[in-house]
Amino acid sequence: MTLELIKKEIRELYPYKVDETCCPIKLDANENPYSLPDELKDKVGNALSEIFLNRYPDPFAKELKGLISRRLSLPEECLMLGNGSDELIQIILTATSWGSPSVVVPSPTFSMYKITGLAVGHRVLEIPLDESFDIDPAAIIDACRKERAKVVFLSTPNNPTGNRFSDDKVLEVVKGSHALVVVDEAYGDFSGKSLVPHLKENMNLIILRTLSKIGMAGLRLGIMAANPALLNELDKVRLPYNINSLSQTVAAVLLNNMDAIDGQIDAIISERERVYKALKGLDGVTPYPSEANFILFKVRDADSLHKRLIEKGILIKNLNRPGRLENCMRVTVGTPAENDAFLDAMKNISKKGR
Amino acid sequence: MTLELIKKEIRELYPYKVDETCCPIKLDANENPYSLPDELKDKVGNALSEIFLNRYPDPFAKELKGLISRRLSLPEECLMLGNGSDELIQIILTATSWGSPSVVVPSPTFSMYKITGLAVGHRVLEIPLDESFDIDPAAIIDACRKERAKVVFLSTPNNPTGNRFSDDKVLEVVKGSHALVVVDEAYGDFSGKSLVPHLKENMNLIILRTLSKIGMAGLRLGIMAANPALLNELDKVRLPYNINSLSQTVAAVLLNNMDAIDGQIDAIISERERVYKALKGLDGVTPYPSEANFILFKVRDADSLHKRLIEKGILIKNLNRPGRLENCMRVTVGTPAENDAFLDAMKNISKKGR
Repeated sequence: MTLELIKKEIRELYPYKVDETCCPIKLDANENPYSLPDELKDKVGNALSEIFLNRYPDPFAKELKGLISRRLSLPEECLMLGNGSDELIQIILTATSWGSPSVVVPSPTFSMYKITGLAVGHRVLEIPLDESFDIDPAAIIDACRKERAKVVFLSTPNNPTGNRFSDDKVLEVVKGSHALVVVDEAYGDFSGKSLVPHLKENMNLIILRTLSKIGMAGLRLGIMAANPALLNELDKVRLPYNINSLSQTVAAVLLNNMDAIDGQIDAIISERERVYKALKGLDGVTPYPSEANFILFKVRDADSLHKRLIEKGILIKNLNRPGRLENCMRVTVGTPAENDAFLDAMKNISKKGR
Repeated sequence: MTLELIKKEIRELYPYKVDETCCPIKLDANENPYSLPDELKDKVGNALSEIFLNRYPDPFAKELKGLISRRLSLPEECLMLGNGSDELIQIILTATSWGSPSVVVPSPTFSMYKITGLAVGHRVLEIPLDESFDIDPAAIIDACRKERAKVVFLSTPNNPTGNRFSDDKVLEVVKGSHALVVVDEAYGDFSGKSLVPHLKENMNLIILRTLSKIGMAGLRLGIMAANPALLNELDKVRLPYNINSLSQTVAAVLLNNMDAIDGQIDAIISERERVYKALKGLDGVTPYPSEANFILFKVRDADSLHKRLIEKGILIKNLNRPGRLENCMRVTVGTPAENDAFLDAMKNISKKGR
């Protein structure tokens, strides 16, 4: 009886699943493998000791926004912060959940667009990616028009495929659909490219960034960039104190000391190229080109490989399901030593037949 | 054109307003005035230095949940944590936003129930409190039945009136309505009373608590207690990493050292009684009894008093609006010195006519 008060779509929902397997080498969650340099740790510690925990956080996160504004070369009024991009995705979908709302997403892509869409009342229209994992703009625009979709999510570089969608095709969707087009650049720092310069002339373009992939997953800090008039409306859905004092403080310290982080990003990019080449040389393994901090690859039997890697203390993400991701797995780029361990294990298992 | 994609109710919404006035004495936000004792600060600092910020937080916040479970004497499966109670309120309202949803709230009460209700698509039915700021259970049950309301929010002690609603009346609503009845005990620590023991026999009862009012506003940690079957559904709306690593860690340290915090709570309660009596002795000031960490009081001209207090460096909350809160103000109980300063200023202004 009481449970019937809950929306049917939620009762039927399969929530986001976090793999709880414990392994010494964790290459499943697209985290930055490096912890902070010691001198930065000290700075963080000093800043944290000055917080008044008994006071509410700054609801506008002014200092932090200023720093992000400088890093992205965008005025502050074009920025909004979230408790991870997850919260920003939820805000966009909540704000557009009226009439008989629908959202268009490519397939495969990051699963939270669909999960959150369903939770807040959207129908979810999934448009398959093409052979090279790029989007089909005509099919997306067509779906938007026919179903009067209110939002499109395009993750570029795309999770879990690793490639960037063609900028031209993304901009074709932005200009050709009347929906809000959310370009999620969560992995943008590993591609060095961004659609931020296109914000100005496209009122319906929203860009998401995050600090999670470049070393601050524990903070939960997502960034939304869009036209100020649009942000002004979306900001009404944001909970007033969504970014806590601790996160605001730590993120500010890190953004004031980005040299160390940028060095880590470069190291990850160079390791990505090394791991890609090594996987390519393995029998029965097909890696796909990546501009992110992970690599998607196809094997003969993903389920069995996943188990054997766990036995060797290495956790990667098993994406095996019927369709485009059959026997596909995703490995996060780790430290050189972690990558060596992963590649050694792969070679070893490969020899015994996969 | 683009803005029309946003829900009309959101475009028309007045969001939660945070007073940005800066005053040396800040008694407007129902914060605990005491910072952490130094030895606790050290413990917090040590714990924070051990966090791996590059890793995602524990999505289940297991350690923290265990500690809260012990403090509330409730099994862990009856608990869910939020990024402040705000997020839990949003989750409840999102999960019940289907059909033509409505939510019942008393008036006056905490404004986020209404703001979030409107944002996620609920109609909001406001039922006036009676002469002594208690609820009218028959009127609430009646509104629930007629409008098939899915949720009722009862904040007890109520913000901004400060009183607890009669337990009998609250339980009458719980038993008499078919809605989810959310009893928000954000200020429960200052009353020493709780409806937690009634959770077991009432499947539709949800209780909210928070660490914000007892000294951890900067952490953003809200607690929801309910039947596990109900929580299981609500948990599907929760974003997987909603409580960041920093908050999880700091909250765990504080919950392991609650003696200091409990002492602060006692000090606030005793100051509340002193401030109440002093206000009662002032000409033209009518304070209302409080079981929270703030006091509601009525004056002859709240707008002018508010301005004059700010001139003296004291910020309290001006609630003046037509109806029950006409010329009403809310002062948070501060440290003895802050309360003295506030009371002195009140006496001073009082002499010159208010």
